[in-house]
Parts: sequence; structure tokens; C-alpha cells
Amino acid sequence: MKRRTFMAGAGALTSVSLPSKPKKYLVHHAIFWLKNPTSESDKNKLIEGLETLRAVSYIQELHVGALASTEKRDVVDTSWQVSEVMFFNNTQDQKSYQDHPIHQAFVKNYSHLWSKVLVYDAQDV
Amino acid sequence: MKRRTFMAGAGALTSVSLPSKPKKYLVHHAIFWLKNPTSESDKNKLIEGLETLRAVSYIQELHVGALASTEKRDVVDTSWQVSEVMFFNNTQDQKSYQDHPIHQAFVKNYSHLWSKVLVYDAQDV
Repeated sequence: MKRRTFMAGAGALTSVSLPSKPKKYLVHHAIFWLKNPTSESDKNKLIEGLETLRAVSYIQELHVGALASTEKRDVVDTSWQVSEVMFFNNTQDQKSYQDHPIHQAFVKNYSHLWSKVLVYDAQDV
Repeated sequence: MKRRTFMAGAGALTSVSLPSKPKKYLVHHAIFWLKNPTSESDKNKLIEGLETLRAVSYIQELHVGALASTEKRDVVDTSWQVSEVMFFNNTQDQKSYQDHPIHQAFVKNYSHLWSKVLVYDAQDV
């Protein structure tokens, strides 16, 4: 009986298909407001600049994005133009990225394009 | 000579190790400010609520996070408490998520915990 119970338990376990939790990251999200918000050229230049950051090995994953055309709702901020979402293994790596020459060069060469940048750093729980 | 040139070109290509670009997603980032910002209990309740969203199949990846302990800088917003970062395949899936019963139940059961929510929807370029 014990064995039968165990087998039933094991069967039940394998039939459960819960979505898996991804690896835990430090998610670094920077949102950019362009000085010329309607300039496609400036938007593309900033995107080009953000793509250079892909060479920083501390970054586990990089998503360079632009304002999406999702439904306009009160809670959705649609006043910005360009976004970077980066995954780091930990806060130390995020600090190392901040100090990295490629990131410093990005700030030096592209910061004239934006009027404001806002950062949200979230630690996966 | 042509063949030699071609071979050299092919060799150069295989020796380049550029970091790969991930698949393009609609990145949906919601940031929550708790009514009781210092309540660990409310923070954990909201995190528990966000975890229920993992069952929505439209979500390709979900990161539930809390304010990280990264360096305090002027550009870093540290006034919030809880964060969700979701990847969708497209804006349609994001809309289907908004209307999904599991998401509606989350809003019904947990929205009393927050005073403000702010959303950034970024389309990978």
C-alpha cells in the first residue's frame, strides 16, 4: 500500500505543469526622454548607442526598446521615447557596468541626446 | 585568389564573438508604491499576488522584484517597493493578459495594497 501511495504521488507530481521561475536577476531599467522627442534620427542614434553596451560582459541580457503601442491607460507612462532593460547577476556586476569604459563612453557620446533619464533597479525575489 | 579571399573572409566571420541579441519582446514593467511603504507584510502579500500571474500563458517570462540595494544616484527612483517585469510576444498578448481572469482577480484581490502603479511598455527594437 505504501508503494502504491508513493507511485500515485509521483504520478500527480509529474502531471503538474507549473510555469518555471526564471533565474533571479538584478533588473536594471533605464528610461530616456529625448531632448527632441519627435526626432526619429535622435531616437535611432540613442538606440545605436545603447547597442554598444551589448559588449559589456557583466550584462547577462539587454533589451533595447522604444515606447510600445499598447493601450493608453492612466497608469501607463507614454511620455518617454527609449528604454534599456538589463539583467545582471547581482548588484556588484551592475556597479561594475556603471564604471565600465564602454558605459562611460556611451554616456560621453550620447548623453547630449536626452533631457532626462530615470532608473528602476529591481532585485528578483 | 578569389577562393583565398573568400576563405579569409569566412575565417574572420567565425572568429568574431559578438554577444547575441535576445528574441524581441514587448517588455511590460509595472512599478508599485505600497499604501504602507514600510510594511514587509504588505510587500510580501503583493509579491504573493504577482506570483499568481505566472499562470497566465501569454506571459513569456515574469520577474517579480523588490527595490534593489544599488548605489543611490539622482537618476535612480528608489521611492517604490515592488516591481513586475513581463515579457510578451506582442502587444496583442499584452492586451489578452490585461483582460485575463487571473489578472482581473489579481487586481481585485491585491489593489487595496498599493497607492500608485506606474507602467512602462517598451517594444524591443
